[in-house]
Amino acid sequence: MSKTVVNVKTDVQAVLNELKSKQIRNVFFVACGGSSAIMYPAKYVLDREAQHITSDLYSSNEFIHRNPQQLGKDSLVILCSMSGTTPETTEAAKFAKSKGAYAVALTNEPTSPLAHSADIFIKYEWGNDIDAFETNLGVLYQLVFGLLYVAEKNDKFAKLVTSLENLQSVYEKALEYEASNARKFAESHKSEPVIYTMASGSNYGAAYSFSICILMEMQWIHSHAIHAGEYFHGPFEIIDENVPFIILAGLDETRPLEERALSFSKRYGKKLTVLDAKAYDFEGIDKDVQGYIAPLVLNRVLRQYAEELAEARNHPLSKRRYMWKVEY
Amino acid sequence: MSKTVVNVKTDVQAVLNELKSKQIRNVFFVACGGSSAIMYPAKYVLDREAQHITSDLYSSNEFIHRNPQQLGKDSLVILCSMSGTTPETTEAAKFAKSKGAYAVALTNEPTSPLAHSADIFIKYEWGNDIDAFETNLGVLYQLVFGLLYVAEKNDKFAKLVTSLENLQSVYEKALEYEASNARKFAESHKSEPVIYTMASGSNYGAAYSFSICILMEMQWIHSHAIHAGEYFHGPFEIIDENVPFIILAGLDETRPLEERALSFSKRYGKKLTVLDAKAYDFEGIDKDVQGYIAPLVLNRVLRQYAEELAEARNHPLSKRRYMWKVEY
Repeated sequence: MSKTVVNVKTDVQAVLNELKSKQIRNVFFVACGGSSAIMYPAKYVLDREAQHITSDLYSSNEFIHRNPQQLGKDSLVILCSMSGTTPETTEAAKFAKSKGAYAVALTNEPTSPLAHSADIFIKYEWGNDIDAFETNLGVLYQLVFGLLYVAEKNDKFAKLVTSLENLQSVYEKALEYEASNARKFAESHKSEPVIYTMASGSNYGAAYSFSICILMEMQWIHSHAIHAGEYFHGPFEIIDENVPFIILAGLDETRPLEERALSFSKRYGKKLTVLDAKAYDFEGIDKDVQGYIAPLVLNRVLRQYAEELAEARNHPLSKRRYMWKVEY
Repeated sequence: MSKTVVNVKTDVQAVLNELKSKQIRNVFFVACGGSSAIMYPAKYVLDREAQHITSDLYSSNEFIHRNPQQLGKDSLVILCSMSGTTPETTEAAKFAKSKGAYAVALTNEPTSPLAHSADIFIKYEWGNDIDAFETNLGVLYQLVFGLLYVAEKNDKFAKLVTSLENLQSVYEKALEYEASNARKFAESHKSEPVIYTMASGSNYGAAYSFSICILMEMQWIHSHAIHAGEYFHGPFEIIDENVPFIILAGLDETRPLEERALSFSKRYGKKLTVLDAKAYDFEGIDKDVQGYIAPLVLNRVLRQYAEELAEARNHPLSKRRYMWKVEY
């Protein structure tokens, strides 16, 4: 029996203990919207690290209706919903169990339908004053690197957990570094009708989340998260001096894609906002996992940008016209 | 030795003959832009049909830099580029071979760098007067269903090939059915600054292609292909009476997602264009593969919409400001 020697969140450790007796062949990352977006870097980790375990990522209802042939008793299905009340994700947990898969729910609400529907749940914390280690992104990485350790003896687990323990101070320094940039962005973009985001690799999820949850959902601003590699095969024809782009540059192996997209955009665009993880202080984050950790930092900084934008536009992030208000 | 008894394109049969002696464990779909978009339905097919073979889909440069751990001698890498000159895709073919994978290129140009860099290539035809069987989507399906037959004895291969042989007449009837709708769409949307597309399942690629290649690249119109399941977890807050949506409704298992998104959009949007495959005549297409064939028909009809839009806007589909004109 493998024995984990690192200090993970108790809930995560309980799941890892269960996984020790299972033969996981594939992982399905299943959630909706912002909770799905947090899973993109986890899929990137499995793609790069897993020797045998395969993975897929689907929006909850797509997962159910697509009904993947290989979903079964050797599957780990990781689901996430903050409130635990997202109906599609709760249904997906039940569906996964009906196929014999092991369903692990990440939620802030231990008494929620999702927590009840899964085989086991991990409680995460939520809010600007919560330590990075306890957030959805923090616990998901503990789970995924823990799985890699338990199933395949991957040696990055301990480094990752230690790095997550030091992540909060990286967040705080990055937020301080970006504070005036975020205010300037908000002021200069408060009247823009369209704002694109762009990234690649492990950072794409942060761009996607900002586009669909912050800009479209919470600010009613047109948006699209462009993949930095796809940019040159269509989307780049849209850029000119009047079209704003937020470009993420992370620290993972796909950074050359983001740098190339940025370089082109600088030549033909004028309204560029660049969040570059190279400018942040990653003290306490192990070199071997900095590429994986960067999207978490970029994601946290983007939240600051969102808050400033909402303030400058006098359009609170909590404002909705349909969500939770009408039937859908 | 398994023996295929159906009449596939000679080039495809040559690949299938090679695959008979290989043990393919995973498939990577690798291309850029529109050539990547045609692979989304093929991934959907493998997800639903493959008992053992896993699959992933990546933009060419993402594939190289992500460097999937499981890419190796048991991998089939399917690449596509019409001209065969897309540098990232040619590099991806070389990269795949360097890892021991079997690289199959789809291209219109047998003497192109991509055709030379892959282990083997399949020539497809291009243009409005080409039979559906010979197009990129046609040969890719022959290859993917052929693989499923050769490797796993999947019984849909013959049905699929016969259906592809009858597809051209389905196209023609659908184009005739949609002709006046396409003209009306073009006229009513010619001044729109933003047009969203939406779909799910096997149809998402057609929506993605229309957004990034037709609207953004060829018409310089802002766009985003929204996943119909994700719609309710962010993007739907953007819709109102002034925001145009093109909504695809296919025939696959995820149709309930598209129907739900359409139903909501009808309540709060006014500028809706619906392409519903149920309205088309699928004579000659086997019931068992109609869901898989629908995205090909929707994709063909969308080309008609694109041509009408370009005409109404006096902005030819061939017009570019950066692509093939400046360095990038």
